[in-house]
Amino acid sequence: MTKYNIPVQVPVGVSNKHIHLSQNHLEQLFGPGHKLTELKPLYQPGHYACKEVLTIAGPKGIIPNVRVLGPLRSQTQVEVSRTDSYLLGIKPPLRDSGDLEGSAGCILMGPKGTVVLEEGVIIAARHIHCSPEEAEALQLKDKDRVNLSVAGERSVIFNNVLVRVAHGLRLELHVDTDEANASFLGNSDFAYILEKSTEKEAIPLVVKEFQKV
Amino acid sequence: MTKYNIPVQVPVGVSNKHIHLSQNHLEQLFGPGHKLTELKPLYQPGHYACKEVLTIAGPKGIIPNVRVLGPLRSQTQVEVSRTDSYLLGIKPPLRDSGDLEGSAGCILMGPKGTVVLEEGVIIAARHIHCSPEEAEALQLKDKDRVNLSVAGERSVIFNNVLVRVAHGLRLELHVDTDEANASFLGNSDFAYILEKSTEKEAIPLVVKEFQKV
Repeated sequence: MTKYNIPVQVPVGVSNKHIHLSQNHLEQLFGPGHKLTELKPLYQPGHYACKEVLTIAGPKGIIPNVRVLGPLRSQTQVEVSRTDSYLLGIKPPLRDSGDLEGSAGCILMGPKGTVVLEEGVIIAARHIHCSPEEAEALQLKDKDRVNLSVAGERSVIFNNVLVRVAHGLRLELHVDTDEANASFLGNSDFAYILEKSTEKEAIPLVVKEFQKV
Repeated sequence: MTKYNIPVQVPVGVSNKHIHLSQNHLEQLFGPGHKLTELKPLYQPGHYACKEVLTIAGPKGIIPNVRVLGPLRSQTQVEVSRTDSYLLGIKPPLRDSGDLEGSAGCILMGPKGTVVLEEGVIIAARHIHCSPEEAEALQLKDKDRVNLSVAGERSVIFNNVLVRVAHGLRLELHVDTDEANASFLGNSDFAYILEKSTEKEAIPLVVKEFQKV
């Protein structure tokens, strides 16, 4: 088991609800030939928040002014928190980015049109981004899982956090707003990798299953 | 250090935003001589949700239909999540119930009147309730702190959870909606006491402070 002598400091990025659009949906929502307008760069190189915002609608409510993130993707993906999902009245699954099959639907409303999204709405699973060089230094590889500690008034340990290694990315922990608010994490904060996850973390789950029998 | 051979199963109670009222404020909001009407009992004996609801207002927004819990208290206390606090535009501190000095204010609006609350709004610190008999069996005493594990897709460990021992209470972990949504906990779920908290949990905090210098 890899256990670090000193916890490894990781910058935290809090993901508010946001939308990744396909070319097709971009044009349906903002008009033919529309191009995304960069508002500000994100921490991960090449990624940016756009001027464009949309309204997300579900059977129980709407959320206006949801930010579109660039660049475009092959498939539209809407990321909300569980809190957001209750407001909308939908049940998105917890998923890694890009894993959209059988996920929840919603309606997207833009200035020039509406898209009825049959699937594409997820609650994003927390994860760490890092470059191959950072991964090597930390003795980690793609799809490893690690336990991270958050200090402070609402100290928690996040178990089994997915590690995603890719060229051009930088070391960063992505959590959603529920996770950030539950642990009082903000964008200028840090979390700490304690160790690689082991099967130990699964023990309470077994106990739980046993109790339900 | 107390470390249990088998994690101790604790039922989870998720606290949505709610209001405890003083006699004085009850009458200002619902009219002179008004009595609370029990809607349903809570898990802790003697505590109950009331038919009465109020609107909470802050500088940035309002939250309607916030449940009043009974019985009455000597001082009005409003418990919200950090998510709620952003919507209202107020900054309540993380506090134990009853510790209201210097906490945030808000406006409460009822059918018969309005109360401008100078202080009394808090984000409730997660805690475990238990009876003296349960505490003894678990080798815990009032104001101890424990680490609890939550299993499942969003497995976390909640560090330094306050233990509150009192006659007439039952073993239960209270978390707010941010903590519940961050760990996918619901009212029919369980958390597991792993051990008494030690000073180990404070280490990342020290690292964090050091990094900021």
